[in-house]
Amino acid sequence: MNEKRTEISSLGEFGLIKQLTQQFPINQKSTIKGIGDDAAVIKYSMDKHTVVSTDLLLEGIHFDLMYCPLKHLGYKSVVVNVSDIYAMNAIPRQITVSIGISNRFSVEALEEFYDGVRLACKNYGVDLIGGDTTSSQKGFIISITAIGEVEESKLAYRNTAKEGDLIFVTGDLGASYLGLQILEREKKIFLENPGVEVKLEEDQYLVERQLKPEAQRETIELFHELEITPTAMIDISDGLSSELKHICAQSNVGCHIFEEQIPIFQETYDAALKLHLDPITCAMNGGEDYELLFCMNKTDAQKIYGRHGIKCIGEIKNSSYGLVLESKAGFHHEITAQGWNHIL
Amino acid sequence: MNEKRTEISSLGEFGLIKQLTQQFPINQKSTIKGIGDDAAVIKYSMDKHTVVSTDLLLEGIHFDLMYCPLKHLGYKSVVVNVSDIYAMNAIPRQITVSIGISNRFSVEALEEFYDGVRLACKNYGVDLIGGDTTSSQKGFIISITAIGEVEESKLAYRNTAKEGDLIFVTGDLGASYLGLQILEREKKIFLENPGVEVKLEEDQYLVERQLKPEAQRETIELFHELEITPTAMIDISDGLSSELKHICAQSNVGCHIFEEQIPIFQETYDAALKLHLDPITCAMNGGEDYELLFCMNKTDAQKIYGRHGIKCIGEIKNSSYGLVLESKAGFHHEITAQGWNHIL
Repeated sequence: MNEKRTEISSLGEFGLIKQLTQQFPINQKSTIKGIGDDAAVIKYSMDKHTVVSTDLLLEGIHFDLMYCPLKHLGYKSVVVNVSDIYAMNAIPRQITVSIGISNRFSVEALEEFYDGVRLACKNYGVDLIGGDTTSSQKGFIISITAIGEVEESKLAYRNTAKEGDLIFVTGDLGASYLGLQILEREKKIFLENPGVEVKLEEDQYLVERQLKPEAQRETIELFHELEITPTAMIDISDGLSSELKHICAQSNVGCHIFEEQIPIFQETYDAALKLHLDPITCAMNGGEDYELLFCMNKTDAQKIYGRHGIKCIGEIKNSSYGLVLESKAGFHHEITAQGWNHIL
Repeated sequence: MNEKRTEISSLGEFGLIKQLTQQFPINQKSTIKGIGDDAAVIKYSMDKHTVVSTDLLLEGIHFDLMYCPLKHLGYKSVVVNVSDIYAMNAIPRQITVSIGISNRFSVEALEEFYDGVRLACKNYGVDLIGGDTTSSQKGFIISITAIGEVEESKLAYRNTAKEGDLIFVTGDLGASYLGLQILEREKKIFLENPGVEVKLEEDQYLVERQLKPEAQRETIELFHELEITPTAMIDISDGLSSELKHICAQSNVGCHIFEEQIPIFQETYDAALKLHLDPITCAMNGGEDYELLFCMNKTDAQKIYGRHGIKCIGEIKNSSYGLVLESKAGFHHEITAQGWNHIL
């Protein structure tokens, strides 16, 4: 945290917005008008559909400022939204960011948050085109809407998986969930004994996956480059099981998943055992991976088979087959999903 | 409030979303995919630009559930957003609604909120296409994004007013602010003496303007019908003074406003005096009117001059002229704006 502390009240609402958004360049040719009017204006080329997704992130529910640096939070807030745009096989282009803040935040703290937003905008090629800034009575509130574009023929919905499609996931699963468990453990230790040194180095990968996840831009660009389109796709935000259930229920199909194919990194595996958790359960139900789960017909699938960071985990079956997880020992289990239920 | 109380936890996140959004039909032909995937999909006709606006509304800051019924709140939340789309001279078509809620709300209470959202969607011809639902630790949180369309040639920005343009406002000003003062007064009386009967009948117009405002759909439809386009436009959410300052600063012009032309209803005038407030100050700085302030060249202006609900209040001057309010007695005052500064 910066040492200088400028009170938000010293700038006023319009001054604050100006200060926070002045270093956001407009790079997308589809952005006609960004911040500064009643609404932003966008124009995509005539063959494109517009894709819109929105997320509400609340302090104490979705993030804990005790261990989530504001810059990372800004970055992640953008990432979780562009991830939804990629999950439609679309390209994100614009974003709006609204924040509710109490006077416990300084202008410098908010600048850190926007530094993260700006870095994500740069990395994912999106323009910040609007938002709302207001005071909150309690807690930091973030609402983001991401907007993107895609040709109609390339759209990948959830409800269009077909029997015989192969099922793939990108990257690895469970790491973010374990990163969160480690951060929560260290927070507890720190609160009980504030003098103790927090040790996160050996779990750096897991903690980074939780605090600074990335969306799967390369995968979508690969699809477009190879001119292949998933028959169905969803991003893995609530855990693999939950997303499989969405695709199967909405597509009216079943699936067969091989446990041994589920990508789990060694760090994830080791940390799970150390925390007395089942690594497969962490991977299936952990949440916040922001990887992609997609289905593809076998012809298209051949073009990506064996590509680094993309793994075939099973096959779509007919609806009466149900959702089956085959264990390493060959036993069949029904896939159940707890998901991440934020409504308690 | 409904007597039956269903706990949110009995439905779970996905069950709740289904319950709340099931009665939202898709009516707009530009809505390709609504709720139910990672993102919604929109397709406007090729000659249209897309217009996007977003607002964050927080309990205790923007609304008080002690006197704001949830149905009205749902309605108003949509209205304040479509108002921004109209202020671009565009037609709203889609909306996303995100809510953060604590377990003090029942499913029935949320249904009341969505009843209001649905009524506004119907009245303004917009489809609910997405959103996010999450628990909050404290308070009701609403984030809305409205999306609309307009031909490029019809877009009305804030920064394009020209010297010699006439300045108009729709409807009447100050009523919503006085409605809020009356509600706050009655709340105070009620809290001090819970047995007392709350009297709002005689101030019904003012209270309704605060609790259930309307956006200026007819005015925009009139512009499109007459094929005239304001040279600049903004919606009056922070008070006339504040909006005049935005238009003049961004267009690099001045203005001359006649106090006697500012539309103030008799109810507003009487209530202001009763509360020992200056009616003109209420009209200039009150906020939440959701009327439109627009500028028009004199040729186009002739086509709407004298139309019911549209009043010419002054003229755009060059930038060195400043922002002048001419009082009924003929004195010139500089226009200063407090606006509604939500950042305290």
